[in-house]
This record gives sequence, C-alpha cells and structure tokens, in this order.
Amino acid sequence: MVQSFTPPRRRLMGPGPTMVHPRVLEASSRPTIGHLDPAFAGLMDEVKFLLKYAFRTQNALTLPVSAPGSAGMEMCFVNLVEPEDKVIVCVNGVFGGRMKANVERAGGTAVVVESPWGTPVDPAAVEQALDRHPDARIVAFVHAETSTGALSDAKSIAALARGRGALVIVDAVTSLGGVPLLVDEWGLDAVYSGSQKCLSGMPGLSPVTFGEAALERVRARRTPVNSWFLDLTLVMGYWDAEGGRSYHHTAPVNAIYALHEALVMLHEEGLENAWQRHRDAHDRLVAGLDALGLELLVEEAARLPQLNAVKIPQGVDDAAVRRDLLQRFDLEIGPGLGDLAGKIWRIGLMGESARPENVDYCLDALKTVLGGRLNCAA
Amino acid sequence: MVQSFTPPRRRLMGPGPTMVHPRVLEASSRPTIGHLDPAFAGLMDEVKFLLKYAFRTQNALTLPVSAPGSAGMEMCFVNLVEPEDKVIVCVNGVFGGRMKANVERAGGTAVVVESPWGTPVDPAAVEQALDRHPDARIVAFVHAETSTGALSDAKSIAALARGRGALVIVDAVTSLGGVPLLVDEWGLDAVYSGSQKCLSGMPGLSPVTFGEAALERVRARRTPVNSWFLDLTLVMGYWDAEGGRSYHHTAPVNAIYALHEALVMLHEEGLENAWQRHRDAHDRLVAGLDALGLELLVEEAARLPQLNAVKIPQGVDDAAVRRDLLQRFDLEIGPGLGDLAGKIWRIGLMGESARPENVDYCLDALKTVLGGRLNCAA
Repeated sequence: MVQSFTPPRRRLMGPGPTMVHPRVLEASSRPTIGHLDPAFAGLMDEVKFLLKYAFRTQNALTLPVSAPGSAGMEMCFVNLVEPEDKVIVCVNGVFGGRMKANVERAGGTAVVVESPWGTPVDPAAVEQALDRHPDARIVAFVHAETSTGALSDAKSIAALARGRGALVIVDAVTSLGGVPLLVDEWGLDAVYSGSQKCLSGMPGLSPVTFGEAALERVRARRTPVNSWFLDLTLVMGYWDAEGGRSYHHTAPVNAIYALHEALVMLHEEGLENAWQRHRDAHDRLVAGLDALGLELLVEEAARLPQLNAVKIPQGVDDAAVRRDLLQRFDLEIGPGLGDLAGKIWRIGLMGESARPENVDYCLDALKTVLGGRLNCAA
Repeated sequence: MVQSFTPPRRRLMGPGPTMVHPRVLEASSRPTIGHLDPAFAGLMDEVKFLLKYAFRTQNALTLPVSAPGSAGMEMCFVNLVEPEDKVIVCVNGVFGGRMKANVERAGGTAVVVESPWGTPVDPAAVEQALDRHPDARIVAFVHAETSTGALSDAKSIAALARGRGALVIVDAVTSLGGVPLLVDEWGLDAVYSGSQKCLSGMPGLSPVTFGEAALERVRARRTPVNSWFLDLTLVMGYWDAEGGRSYHHTAPVNAIYALHEALVMLHEEGLENAWQRHRDAHDRLVAGLDALGLELLVEEAARLPQLNAVKIPQGVDDAAVRRDLLQRFDLEIGPGLGDLAGKIWRIGLMGESARPENVDYCLDALKTVLGGRLNCAA
C-alpha cells in the first residue's frame, strides 16, 4: 500500500544525523524559488557569510557543496590532488581511511601515518613522515574522528605541514560548531564539513572552505579535475557573485533554506557559547556514565565532547541494547565501526542533541536497559 | 543583519526547479530520523518501488543519488566509462555537451554526433556513427533536452545501440514523469533524472536506474571508479537490502521524505494521467502563445510538452521581460542557454507547474508585459 510516510519521533544521539530544531525543519518547507532568483542570490550571500563565521575564516571561497560530507571530502581531494602527487594521510579511524581511498582514486600516492584507533593523530609521526617525504604536497587528517571520538591537534599538524610547503586538507565534519575550529588562525587550506552534525541542519549538504594557497594549487593544475560535478572552478562560477552566478547545477534550494536557518541559530547563540554547550553536555554525560560504571575509549585530553565512544561492558549484547533503546525509548545511539564494532557505542552530543535534557534521558534509558543486562550477565 | 529567510512566493515556470506541492514541502519538515533506522529502511524500499514505477522498470538497482541531476549524470559515466573507452555522444543542446565533458573526465574518448539545437537527435546519424565506430561501447543521449525543448526518439536510438552491443546512457532529467519513458521496454541500460522537474520533488536528488547489462559492465571494470562518492558498488551496499545496508554516507533523510511524498502523489494520479496532464497543459499554452503571435522553436513532432522554447520577438528585450514577469507577477520563466541565449524563453510546464491555472496566469502575464513592449517596438 502506497501512502505518505510518518516517521517515528526519535531522539538522535548517535554519530549523526542529529536532532533538527523545528525552526530548521520549518524553514525547509518554505516555498521553493528558482536557484537563479535574485532573492536566492541574496540568501546564498548570507549563507556564505554565516559559514565564514562558523569556520572562523575570511576565505571568499566558502560554500555548501550540494551533497553530503563525503562529497565535500571528494571535492577537496579531486581538486587538490593530481596524478602522481604524494599525500601524507593520517589514519586513526574510518574517515582517515576514506581519505586514503580518495587520494588513490584521484591518482595520487598516499603515505599513511597510522595512529591507534581511539587516539589522536600523533604530530611527531607526521613530522617524521614529512622528513621522509619532503616531496609530499599535501597533509590530510581528520580533526574530529567520528568513528572513535578522538580530537586531533589541527593547529600543530597544520603548522608542521606549512613549514614544509605542504597544504593541509582537514575533515571537520564532526568538529564544525562543536569545538574550536579556527581555519584562518591555524592556517587550514581546505576544510570540509557536514550540515547535519554540530550545525544540526538537515542532512545532505557539505560546507567547505578553501584558502588562497589551495586556490593557487587548483589554478596551477596540469590536468583537468576528474569530476565535473565537483570541479571547484565550475562550482565557484555559480556561488561567486563575481563569477556572474552562471548556471552549474540546480541548487538544493530548500536544503539551503534549512542550512541558513541552522546557521542563523548558531549566530544567535554565538559560536563560543555553542562550543561551551557541547562541553557542558559532555561533562554531564561523563559524570552519569561514570555513575553507571561505564568507561570511555578515548583518554581525557583527546576526547571530543560531541562524540563519546563508550566501551561496551563484557557480556553485554551490543545490538540488543541498541535495539532496546530504539524500540522502548525511541533513542538512537551509534554502533562501533570497523575494528571497534561490538566494542563501543557512540553517543553523539551534537548540535540540538547537546542539551542537558537529552543527556539525562539517554542516561536514564541506558540505566534501565543495561540494569537488566548487567544483572543477567552477573 | 542576520535573520530567518522568507522566500517570495513565485510561480515557477522556467526549466526548473518547478512548483513543489505543499504536501511535499510539509513532508520535508517531518522530524529527522537516522539513515540506518529500521523505519528509514522501510521508506527506502518504498522509494525504490515508486521510482521503479515511474521509470517503468524492474531494475533492482533503482535509487535516488544523494545529489542533483548533474551527479546522477556523473554516476552513470564514471561507473560505465573506463579509460580509452569510446563513447558516442549525441549533442543537440547544453546537456549533451555536458555528457561529452563527463566522458572525457572519466578518461574516455567521445565521438560526437551533432544535431542542430532545437531538433531531436537524428537516429540515422547515430547509425552512421556506429558504422564508423564499431568499437564504441556506449551511446549516450539526452531524451528531453531542457535547453531547447526537443524530445528525441529514445526507443529507436536504444535499439540501434543494442544491435551493435553498445550500452545506452540516457538523460531523463526533464522527461521522467512528463512524457512516456519506458526503461525496460525500450532497453535503456543506465538512466538518470532529477527530483525537481516533472516529479516536483524538492531540488537536490537524482533518481537513477541501472539494468543488468550495465551492472555487468561495472563488475567487469579493469580500473577503479575515480569517484568514491559515486561508486555504484559502494552506493548499492547501502541501498540494497542484500548489501546489508552498510554505511556509505549519511543519506539526505528529509529530502528523501519529500521525494517519497512526490512519488506517492504521482502514484495516486497514475503515470499515464500525469503524461496526459503535461500534454494538456502544453496544448493550452501553445494555443495561447499562438493567439499572442508567439512561435515555438521546435517543430511540432519533436516538441516536449513540459519545456517550451518560445522565440523572442524581434526588438524585444529578453532580460527586461523576464525581470518584469518576476517583479510584477512573481513569475519565473527561463532564458535561453548557450547559442540560444537572447533568442528564446523557456516556459516549463513540469510537475505541479503543469496545471491550467498556471498556463493561463503565464499567458496573461506575458500578454501584459509584451503588449507594452510590442507597442514600444512598433
């Protein structure tokens, strides 16, 4: 039987998507206008302004890619990596591994710097790799590893790369809006993020920002970018007023309404206040987990407030607990990925989800569901 | 000043995006759920079922790409074209030209079969190209050229390609839901479309369908697909229940709600009834244009009902007329592209825009705005 879909009302406390505020949902449902309408051009300018605010950058080339974060990642790599280019890729979780795949598909050679999952990228290891590979043109790393909850020192890694004339590509999918991310101050050349984590926009868009050094690299390419859809020079022609807003593709108009509203809300709250809200929610969660006897995977200094990897106690059935939380409490938390599957849960406190009432709800639900399990296991 | 955005209420009668029904807008604003939620998996299955209905296909691999039609185009080319592959590309407008760029960026060699803009692809010319290039592995063409309003004979072109063992890639961005498109009956191997034209979903997604022969070609690739985001085998792992719905990227959940609702409405109306509604709106428009002394670019037999290229009368200022229509009547019609810029307007009667009240409104507005202009010119 074909009929309209009514979603259940979930509390989203996994690795994303996160809770979306009713203001943002409502914004997406405003009447569609043309992607070349002068009124839409004005909105695009505001979105760029607000993204620059969120990224702490003055980069003119700051815009939302019309596709999810994976496409934002790909936009960075396909435009900046040319065949034969050597790229140092830091891998400490799933998304570093995805960066490596992107380098290779763009024809580049990836030099992998591995750190154990659950730990941050080791700047000393990056420095050694730069010593061994002085011809590396790019260093790529994940600021906030969504698969493990580890926060890496973007400032230090960027400084090392800069010192050797390498550009940095930074995955800020989970960090933007949740923890300090200072694109200009830290000298990050190309950064991509997602609309649906700490920004709490609707899922589907990928904010990116490119600095002047990155643009110079793109302009100096010897080969065409192998993606038409993600070719920066073409996309710029639409997003840049000086590019005359020439037609490239039909923008996802309503998704951009939603992103704009989410960014307006971030601006109203203030970026520093949003960071603090994430930190407060994290502290509240950690205290509660501690009381339940649950431990975090990541050492305190490198913990992401907005993505908490919780060790699954011995004898507890990962999937059954998550199913119970979803069915009995309409609560979504995330499973581990890759090597961490079955070993951790991922509790997201991102964007709208980072509120004390959500933390308390999650702790109560965990206590109820686990209480039973732990008794059974005992 | 940073504040929420209130779009003007436009009547969208250009080349897209089209009017979106309030039911579809409302669907997009329902609470977000996780992209791996069992309830979302059920919705994904319904979307696949409904897209198969719209495409008239039994292809298991039928799904919406998480990005606009340009990305759907790219998904077809990056997966099916390998370096050195020869592809016959039919060019009779902007989007055929974009196909050529896609072939080349995927490393293939494009053999272009040109037809004058405003005419359909000439099957005899395709046959000659196949004779001259028996090693061509693919024939690519645009079913409904959005830049000119010409409808090509997909059935005949596909039969020619099939006869020589070549696959066909078909751009159905503007045809899906507006005119007959019989994917299985005509033997179309890979077809992409958009959510925002005759389906009247929100802009941002690209329905695609791949037949068995296309999948065999993908499985037999000698080289990896150069896009990670658009790699069919990876995307299938998420959309195909047998692929275990493994995580690939975060799906644009709310945009899929909207597409689902638009497809439910198409199913309620019936596909043949939707085709007839587009035809009726077109006939009404043509009669009215005739009364105003305005002519269409495309000869009657090849006219797309849903995209009408109207010749701009001598002495009339293209941009000024469109600006007047937008400012005085909140009515958007489209300009010409490329060689047709300044020579035609494009009046779209797609999806929700293809209603008699919109046709009449558009004709009245044109009469008012042009009446003045034609007097001035006289």
